[in-house]
Amino acid sequence: MLTDLLRATRAHTLALAAPLSDEDAQLQSMPDASPAKWHLAHTTWFFETMVLTPYLRGYCVFDERWPRLFNSYYESLGPRHARPQRGLLSRPSLTEVKAYRAHVDAALADLLPHAPAESRTLIELGCHHEQQHQELLLTDILHAFSCNPLLPAYDAAPPPKAAAPEQAWLKHPGGIVSIGHDGNGFAFDNEGPRHQALLAPFEISNRLVTCGEYADFIDAGGYREPLLWLSDGWAAVQAQGWQRPAYWLEDGRVFGLHGVQPLDADAPVMQLSFYEACAYAEWAGARLPTEFEWEAACGLPAFAQAADQAWQWTRSSYAPYPGFKPAAGAVGEYNGKFMVGQQVLRGGSLATPPGHARPTYRNFFPPAARWQFSGVRLAR
Amino acid sequence: MLTDLLRATRAHTLALAAPLSDEDAQLQSMPDASPAKWHLAHTTWFFETMVLTPYLRGYCVFDERWPRLFNSYYESLGPRHARPQRGLLSRPSLTEVKAYRAHVDAALADLLPHAPAESRTLIELGCHHEQQHQELLLTDILHAFSCNPLLPAYDAAPPPKAAAPEQAWLKHPGGIVSIGHDGNGFAFDNEGPRHQALLAPFEISNRLVTCGEYADFIDAGGYREPLLWLSDGWAAVQAQGWQRPAYWLEDGRVFGLHGVQPLDADAPVMQLSFYEACAYAEWAGARLPTEFEWEAACGLPAFAQAADQAWQWTRSSYAPYPGFKPAAGAVGEYNGKFMVGQQVLRGGSLATPPGHARPTYRNFFPPAARWQFSGVRLAR
Amino acid sequence: MLTDLLRATRAHTLALAAPLSDEDAQLQSMPDASPAKWHLAHTTWFFETMVLTPYLRGYCVFDERWPRLFNSYYESLGPRHARPQRGLLSRPSLTEVKAYRAHVDAALADLLPHAPAESRTLIELGCHHEQQHQELLLTDILHAFSCNPLLPAYDAAPPPKAAAPEQAWLKHPGGIVSIGHDGNGFAFDNEGPRHQALLAPFEISNRLVTCGEYADFIDAGGYREPLLWLSDGWAAVQAQGWQRPAYWLEDGRVFGLHGVQPLDADAPVMQLSFYEACAYAEWAGARLPTEFEWEAACGLPAFAQAADQAWQWTRSSYAPYPGFKPAAGAVGEYNGKFMVGQQVLRGGSLATPPGHARPTYRNFFPPAARWQFSGVRLAR
Amino acid sequence: MLTDLLRATRAHTLALAAPLSDEDAQLQSMPDASPAKWHLAHTTWFFETMVLTPYLRGYCVFDERWPRLFNSYYESLGPRHARPQRGLLSRPSLTEVKAYRAHVDAALADLLPHAPAESRTLIELGCHHEQQHQELLLTDILHAFSCNPLLPAYDAAPPPKAAAPEQAWLKHPGGIVSIGHDGNGFAFDNEGPRHQALLAPFEISNRLVTCGEYADFIDAGGYREPLLWLSDGWAAVQAQGWQRPAYWLEDGRVFGLHGVQPLDADAPVMQLSFYEACAYAEWAGARLPTEFEWEAACGLPAFAQAADQAWQWTRSSYAPYPGFKPAAGAVGEYNGKFMVGQQVLRGGSLATPPGHARPTYRNFFPPAARWQFSGVRLAR
Repeated sequence: MLTDLLRATRAHTLALAAPLSDEDAQLQSMPDASPAKWHLAHTTWFFETMVLTPYLRGYCVFDERWPRLFNSYYESLGPRHARPQRGLLSRPSLTEVKAYRAHVDAALADLLPHAPAESRTLIELGCHHEQQHQELLLTDILHAFSCNPLLPAYDAAPPPKAAAPEQAWLKHPGGIVSIGHDGNGFAFDNEGPRHQALLAPFEISNRLVTCGEYADFIDAGGYREPLLWLSDGWAAVQAQGWQRPAYWLEDGRVFGLHGVQPLDADAPVMQLSFYEACAYAEWAGARLPTEFEWEAACGLPAFAQAADQAWQWTRSSYAPYPGFKPAAGAVGEYNGKFMVGQQVLRGGSLATPPGHARPTYRNFFPPAARWQFSGVRLAR
Repeated sequence: MLTDLLRATRAHTLALAAPLSDEDAQLQSMPDASPAKWHLAHTTWFFETMVLTPYLRGYCVFDERWPRLFNSYYESLGPRHARPQRGLLSRPSLTEVKAYRAHVDAALADLLPHAPAESRTLIELGCHHEQQHQELLLTDILHAFSCNPLLPAYDAAPPPKAAAPEQAWLKHPGGIVSIGHDGNGFAFDNEGPRHQALLAPFEISNRLVTCGEYADFIDAGGYREPLLWLSDGWAAVQAQGWQRPAYWLEDGRVFGLHGVQPLDADAPVMQLSFYEACAYAEWAGARLPTEFEWEAACGLPAFAQAADQAWQWTRSSYAPYPGFKPAAGAVGEYNGKFMVGQQVLRGGSLATPPGHARPTYRNFFPPAARWQFSGVRLAR
Repeated sequence: MLTDLLRATRAHTLALAAPLSDEDAQLQSMPDASPAKWHLAHTTWFFETMVLTPYLRGYCVFDERWPRLFNSYYESLGPRHARPQRGLLSRPSLTEVKAYRAHVDAALADLLPHAPAESRTLIELGCHHEQQHQELLLTDILHAFSCNPLLPAYDAAPPPKAAAPEQAWLKHPGGIVSIGHDGNGFAFDNEGPRHQALLAPFEISNRLVTCGEYADFIDAGGYREPLLWLSDGWAAVQAQGWQRPAYWLEDGRVFGLHGVQPLDADAPVMQLSFYEACAYAEWAGARLPTEFEWEAACGLPAFAQAADQAWQWTRSSYAPYPGFKPAAGAVGEYNGKFMVGQQVLRGGSLATPPGHARPTYRNFFPPAARWQFSGVRLAR
Repeated sequence: MLTDLLRATRAHTLALAAPLSDEDAQLQSMPDASPAKWHLAHTTWFFETMVLTPYLRGYCVFDERWPRLFNSYYESLGPRHARPQRGLLSRPSLTEVKAYRAHVDAALADLLPHAPAESRTLIELGCHHEQQHQELLLTDILHAFSCNPLLPAYDAAPPPKAAAPEQAWLKHPGGIVSIGHDGNGFAFDNEGPRHQALLAPFEISNRLVTCGEYADFIDAGGYREPLLWLSDGWAAVQAQGWQRPAYWLEDGRVFGLHGVQPLDADAPVMQLSFYEACAYAEWAGARLPTEFEWEAACGLPAFAQAADQAWQWTRSSYAPYPGFKPAAGAVGEYNGKFMVGQQVLRGGSLATPPGHARPTYRNFFPPAARWQFSGVRLAR
């Protein structure tokens, strides 16, 4: 089953990159985003470094100059190529990176039949890690394409038509709830330890805010009224000249994976920053849920669009759960060191690989980030 | 009694500014800090705008060009002089600002005998607001003096000698605790609503980390070991070249309100950023308390240095309590709009005016801020 | 006579600073400008360092911590307080700086009667150096006042009314001309060596461009037409949002030493960058003169407004004359090291102290500078 | 003959791009540099826009969305894709750009037999324009490769071995010399009008400064001695951490078109900024020639390495010659608008296409630029 997960994950990444030319795969449109080629290589480096080198006897690093190029942020694993310069790596070529993938896949296949338990844990982590990069590959290439005046489509097929359920408020009684992962099946370290939290009664929307609803906010002058915004948010509006979500065009159309399309009023609004999510909620007379409210409510029967449309900004900043301890070794840098200055998003998006997300899953981005499939679910 | 509070508060601000020359009172050493003269004027503007104009019949604004200069961040009260340019206001002079203070004080004295209840609430708020600026006046002038190679002393008297209690861990059983202000007496809106929270059992230190202990962290290479730091913290260490707390000099001495002094190993370490506080805690095998743990524990019998030495960074980001609603009107901008991207500090400092802080008090600063009297109390 | 020059120069600086409060004298509104107090101290430091310490036996430096504060840019004289932080020096106070001036003046008086020849040369240089700072003191305080929404007047007296002569083109036959200072009387090192240059015949305007003429350029869309501008100039227009000269207000009035005044159509336009000067000339079907043309023409009988209104941007970049050698010692850093990236201005301004400028005088500023009394004389 | 020039020029560009992968051709390593693919397309756009659209009846623009992408800086030709984002154009692909080239080449072949005289002038300009981009294509890809830790070689062949002639000073008597192009054959507008200049007698080196000589400067502490540097140069040294020429590695080897090679002491030093050139000259007791001296001397019999090794920084800033008028129309933006803030380089380099340079040729770059084949010839 781990074999299946590994094979499927590795194949899916390649499939996602298939529509991209060598040139597309090279694009880095901002320091926060990475080239598709880099995602292909970095996820491979992860297996090579965390699994093959320590656990496969006789394994030779594919190219000893590459770990420096494809280490993302692991201080314990030595110096790294500067993040904003990932787009300057025309060499190795996409072809060479694919050969790297094949080399590592073969070595993993060698290892798997007699892989010790710790290595199996790391392989599983590597798969989930790669799934995270599958979504980033899509969000990053979409951002890069959005910088090209030709606005190329990642996928030339027409987009699915959205159908928004009627909005309704779901009631939750509050009280003591269990939060975090229970240890059955895979979870990232930041989802635990499972613990109890006390919630006041609250209501949460059954669905995400739609593009039509968000357009009303814009039409009502939402981007011109400072009192709706957090102070940092209003500063961002002014400094960046925000007037609408990141991929809404001036002409009323919307850019996305399927290229430029008419605005679909029923589709969930996406590519919003936390600041915009909060301002919208303020304007709508509501608020964002905390991540604990979200987790407690997501099992309610009418809770729609939980994980298949857009990640949902919460009012919770990303912080360690009580008793959190990062894993030992390099993988301990995976999550814990980012626990400041970011907001938690819950759910999952249309770009999240199937099977990747969980109710306890904690995604996180800085409050100004607006190139993700990030939307709003209201609470009150 | 409100009369007494007002008179004492207004007088104390002037007393704090007394050691400063006209030139000193003009200094703005960074965008986040303000000149002492500006603090004197802004706190006066607050009373004029929030209290006198709406509630004192026939009150004339002292100078109609000034509100634009001394409005800090109230969007609902019109355009403002840019914050980073406060140090460029040589006019009005310090003398004129003092005349402004006298004018407003006299008008408040006229109003007080027959002030309606809402205005009394606002006068009380104005006093606590001014007390906050009293501390800022000190931290800001200290930062400005730290930029002068002559390192002038705000107060030429020798500093008090610290006496650190023996370190001990205080146990708290956890459970459901009440958090936030109960409404008896003054509190800022961000201290409420009072609500219940659920805590796991924890231990908290009876005192703050000392300079001697922090020096050990430095000597052990704390500023050179990335694995001790949050990712943003390590980026700050490298970008800013941090090697020690903000006012520790290369020669081992420490700059402060009393000028340059030998390091006092027993004194609490101060002028730390949140990042440094976290890195120290990590090195010490402990962590920072949450703001809820701090509030629950601060009444424990042996809990020393609660509010008289340094504010204590907590692991809690600054966010609204459940059910929080900002006040109506301009004062609604007082607190709520800053509730993202900042960490809560609890306690109080040697620069906090007596009577200002409370166990429920929530101070907040960005995680990189290191010009406040901010220190560390460990938990585990 | 050197005694007279010294006494008059030193007194004039104090007279220029007399209208300024201690707070005014502290203002630094941008890195390129310096506080008036700093000008008072730096010019004094120049005499102390260049003259008294080497030539007055037994002279004691006034305060040994100060040279670091008041050295402007002399690398050979040790480390300096960072230029952008000059406005943070509330200490020493203006009073102390005046005492410093008195101390140095007294020492210079002691030295003068038996000053060796080299020291007399340096005293003369110090006087001319101080005269340069007299003009900067005015341009810098004017910039600082322009940043204060109250727009205070340096001089409350009404401004002199301008009278523009009728515009006329003066013909110069070109040919071989002598350029540079002939060594009779004082000149800065950058004015020599005197040498010959070959000019083509040219015409030059008898007077400066007026505010009225410049207003026509603005009305004709001059700030919106990229083809009129040098590439760097157009980039500055867009990046800085330039729409008119630096001190022209949106309401049509003009800020200056006499505060806010109606635009005087006959007065020379000032506070222009080189870019604006070039764009205006292009629009007017003319060009800027070279510094050699200017020097050759300035003696023509009808050549008006040579040195009493505004410095005149030339098309010449600031470069060494053939055979130029900086002086030996620290004063060798006075001029030569700035000979790149700046344009030469010729003439003099209403803020230039009487007797300071000469036909061979070479003023210089970066092309984007617009806080000087800098205007335009056309050539063709 | 124009046909031959066009065919050869167009073919040579493709030949230069031949060693580059699609990914290499996409690289933009800094705002001042452009991707190879962009050079291929922009030079083609130049012919399409300046020649085909106005002069070939019935010509259809290859893709009407492309002119916006490949216009470099012509304000008169409409809005442009932002220069720093040229590296984000993965579409059109390199293949499509080559098809664009073929389409335009075919149309030019159609036009040539009956091309009117003005169009022939523009075709000739287009060829010389493309030759300029041939050199930029090489310098830009070399810079991009220098940002890749793998330091790929553009050309795997070994570099030619340099042979430095014995250094000697060539005497020039000065006097009135003719400067600028005489109109026989092609020249850029900035090379005229031809005019007379007056030179003092001078000496100029017979050859360029070698790597060995420059290494002596470094060993003597040249990068640590502020008094050798122009003020802006020393600021650059400190801000950028310069310690050696741009492509000299820490280990003593040198990166170039042939990859990493041992330092060749006899080879001319290259990839120097103007600041470094000046500092070296100062250290060597010499100076840089003016562009007029260079032009007057370059015909002296022993004048070696005139145009085949490295461009030679001159002490002349880039300014219009007396009587200079840009051409009418869009091509008038070609040169004139850059005539401020740059230094003239004379000669030519190993990357300059054969036949491109002339003794009157004026190359120009900002003084901090160090990614060109730019070196030093001394004068005195």
